[in-house]
Amino acid sequence: MAAQSMEELVALCKRRGFIFQASDIYGGLQGVYDYGPLGVELKNNLKAAWWRAMVYERDDVEGLDAAILTNRTVLKYSGHENTFSDPLVDCRNCKSRWRADHLQDSRCPGCGSTDLTEPRAFNLMFKTHIGPIEDEESVVYLRPETAQSTFVNFKNVLDSTSRRLPFGIAQIGKSFRNEITCRNFIFRVREMEQMELEYFVEPGTDEEWHARWIEMRLDWWVRQGLSENNLELEQHAKDELSHYSKATTDIMYRFPHGLEELEGIANRTDFDLGSHTRNQKDYHIQANVLENRESNSKLAIQDLASKQWIVPFVIEPAAGVERGVLALMTEAYRIEELENGSKRTVLGLAPHLAPIKVAVLSLRRNVPEMVEKAKEIKRALQSLGLGRILFEDTGNIGKGYRRHDEVGTPICVTVDFQTIQEDDTVTIRDRDSMTQERLPAAELSEYVRTYFRTG
Amino acid sequence: MAAQSMEELVALCKRRGFIFQASDIYGGLQGVYDYGPLGVELKNNLKAAWWRAMVYERDDVEGLDAAILTNRTVLKYSGHENTFSDPLVDCRNCKSRWRADHLQDSRCPGCGSTDLTEPRAFNLMFKTHIGPIEDEESVVYLRPETAQSTFVNFKNVLDSTSRRLPFGIAQIGKSFRNEITCRNFIFRVREMEQMELEYFVEPGTDEEWHARWIEMRLDWWVRQGLSENNLELEQHAKDELSHYSKATTDIMYRFPHGLEELEGIANRTDFDLGSHTRNQKDYHIQANVLENRESNSKLAIQDLASKQWIVPFVIEPAAGVERGVLALMTEAYRIEELENGSKRTVLGLAPHLAPIKVAVLSLRRNVPEMVEKAKEIKRALQSLGLGRILFEDTGNIGKGYRRHDEVGTPICVTVDFQTIQEDDTVTIRDRDSMTQERLPAAELSEYVRTYFRTG
Repeated sequence: MAAQSMEELVALCKRRGFIFQASDIYGGLQGVYDYGPLGVELKNNLKAAWWRAMVYERDDVEGLDAAILTNRTVLKYSGHENTFSDPLVDCRNCKSRWRADHLQDSRCPGCGSTDLTEPRAFNLMFKTHIGPIEDEESVVYLRPETAQSTFVNFKNVLDSTSRRLPFGIAQIGKSFRNEITCRNFIFRVREMEQMELEYFVEPGTDEEWHARWIEMRLDWWVRQGLSENNLELEQHAKDELSHYSKATTDIMYRFPHGLEELEGIANRTDFDLGSHTRNQKDYHIQANVLENRESNSKLAIQDLASKQWIVPFVIEPAAGVERGVLALMTEAYRIEELENGSKRTVLGLAPHLAPIKVAVLSLRRNVPEMVEKAKEIKRALQSLGLGRILFEDTGNIGKGYRRHDEVGTPICVTVDFQTIQEDDTVTIRDRDSMTQERLPAAELSEYVRTYFRTG
Repeated sequence: MAAQSMEELVALCKRRGFIFQASDIYGGLQGVYDYGPLGVELKNNLKAAWWRAMVYERDDVEGLDAAILTNRTVLKYSGHENTFSDPLVDCRNCKSRWRADHLQDSRCPGCGSTDLTEPRAFNLMFKTHIGPIEDEESVVYLRPETAQSTFVNFKNVLDSTSRRLPFGIAQIGKSFRNEITCRNFIFRVREMEQMELEYFVEPGTDEEWHARWIEMRLDWWVRQGLSENNLELEQHAKDELSHYSKATTDIMYRFPHGLEELEGIANRTDFDLGSHTRNQKDYHIQANVLENRESNSKLAIQDLASKQWIVPFVIEPAAGVERGVLALMTEAYRIEELENGSKRTVLGLAPHLAPIKVAVLSLRRNVPEMVEKAKEIKRALQSLGLGRILFEDTGNIGKGYRRHDEVGTPICVTVDFQTIQEDDTVTIRDRDSMTQERLPAAELSEYVRTYFRTG
């Protein structure tokens, strides 16, 4: 049984150090969040799993990590300066501002007045100035998506790696959108992290690749622990498509607040490279692009057989890290009724995503030999390179197990008097089955390594 | 012999896909850089090494990943709104703007005029607006350092982890400074990534901890491959100290452009927590702090023995990822003269930092069995979880070795006819010694695992 309400998750996240409201000692910042000791590990584990699947385990993808500050010309030709906006109305009575499509009965949600302006386009990009002078010349944007910084690096990556089609460029990084209405916890935020692959293919093969990527991405989310029952594919209707897209399919997840987009897989055609390339007339660009006289680079690739230069089509699987975290926590959260009538909260995360891989507990804090043994085990397990291993000597072991159930730690290892006085065995306690077994300390590394390989 | 000139490094970085000028197809963005396929791996490896040493291998540090967008009240009490600035002068003749301390002979470096304004303070923080209305109320900053977002989360981390002194909070993330003069490649940039630890200690133990952290951090950089000859400690004179600091020691590195700061280790006293806490009068805050009536949180910790609440002192080791990358590349870059009179370029990075851990080369691209064998080996090595393993079938093996020397790949594995037709052995070629030996393919995983454990 997944989490039934967002409130349960929000409370757990704050209490146990996953996610905090940003700047909260000064009243916070709407739509902006900080990730605590466990949140940073969960987020890093999710990003690492994506990078492994998209870059390391494939032979046709390169990585990239581009800047957030973006030359405005990039966002002129991408279309963002003109089209990345929401319609807003002003209330003439109370001077507040609202999204036009969120009004009810044409009334100001603040004061109830009907004295509203006509809707005007409000650009969602955060703007700032670079260099010592604040004027139109010095305007730069915080990127609204990682994709554009990938497209403008197409030639840089091509020249340094000699790739041929099809190939992809993967990027994980922050993007910013000045959303008018942030809601549903980390679902719709102003500062977000994206995991975007731009996969470049020959025109004509794009529909086939699009279908394959939808399947691969759905399969990947299932391997992260999301159940197929909570996932659905939804194809955008033709009239809902973005200006750059020929077809888009969303992977939808049943969040606590409803069925909503987790990842979008778009066929962006040759719109992006075609928009940013110089000498546009030399290629048969199919998309409707703005004439570009400012780019200094040819964003095309030569077909070795025909010797023709072509502007590739792009298939883009684009996922949000925060939405991934929210979906994984929703899915993993459960409250179990135990035989003795008590309850326990469990975060049943897949082992490779768990913030803490193994907690090593010392039964007593004041027995130096026991503490030292637990620390020694912690160091040995840490050196396996699986992620964070935690040493703890807070006393009450039963409470410790429950605390670790709640944050998803798959394995607890307890060092007690039997360990140090009798037989050098430790107790291994499993999160999901709650079973406990004793194992020689010397076999622990192999046990843990095997667990995380197959788990 | 380390790199002699910045130009050599810049050229290598662009040619081989480490670092590109951001937005460069539109003329770039000064002081902003993108990291290509190899740069992103090197950067991630460096960050992972820091996180391992600072969080995983210690028992007294928690991680954090806070937002870039920052409530301005945070930066009011931190002192950044008032003091984080450079002195600028305007040229009345050509309307240009310059750093006052960079002028020669009180002349405008643009037109030579002496008709200059008096210097005025120019704040180095990037400013933007959040929400639908652009006014003073909606101003937010891009954080100029990760440290402040750590301080304002002090209570969140404490409440969710029950830490006692001494303990630390580690954070890696982007910060932004609108530097007037960016120079020396990635040394002084406007968008940077920081690795900062805030280590909280009891007042009175701060000097001892400061000394220990200086030693630990110096030792860490040596373990990343920097030679002691190129590192120096430099203590700030009393009159050079920042407003929050009681003492600061910089770890200096001999960059191609001179001996400059790689990392700073500051004793920040109780200035930061004392500035951001509510009820300041309840504590014996030693630093000179602004009166704070806006904070809603007590940033103090109770001593279990004396029951007294105290505001801890902070020791801060703060390093820049970009400066780390530049130092490591400077140190690792060498040109060797070979016995036959030819030369080779080698990037002798420590194995754990190398962007590509192993390159698996197929001698022929058009022999399917050979290609499949190489891919199979690549997959097996990839599953060890050591980092990026590259499959390549570009033909010329000798050239392949040289290409991998230049980007620091420690091991190349070559699959040839002997492998598939005779004895299932492969050639292992070592970057530094250039020796080649044959090994049964079945023993490769163990060989590589051992190499990267001890290497």
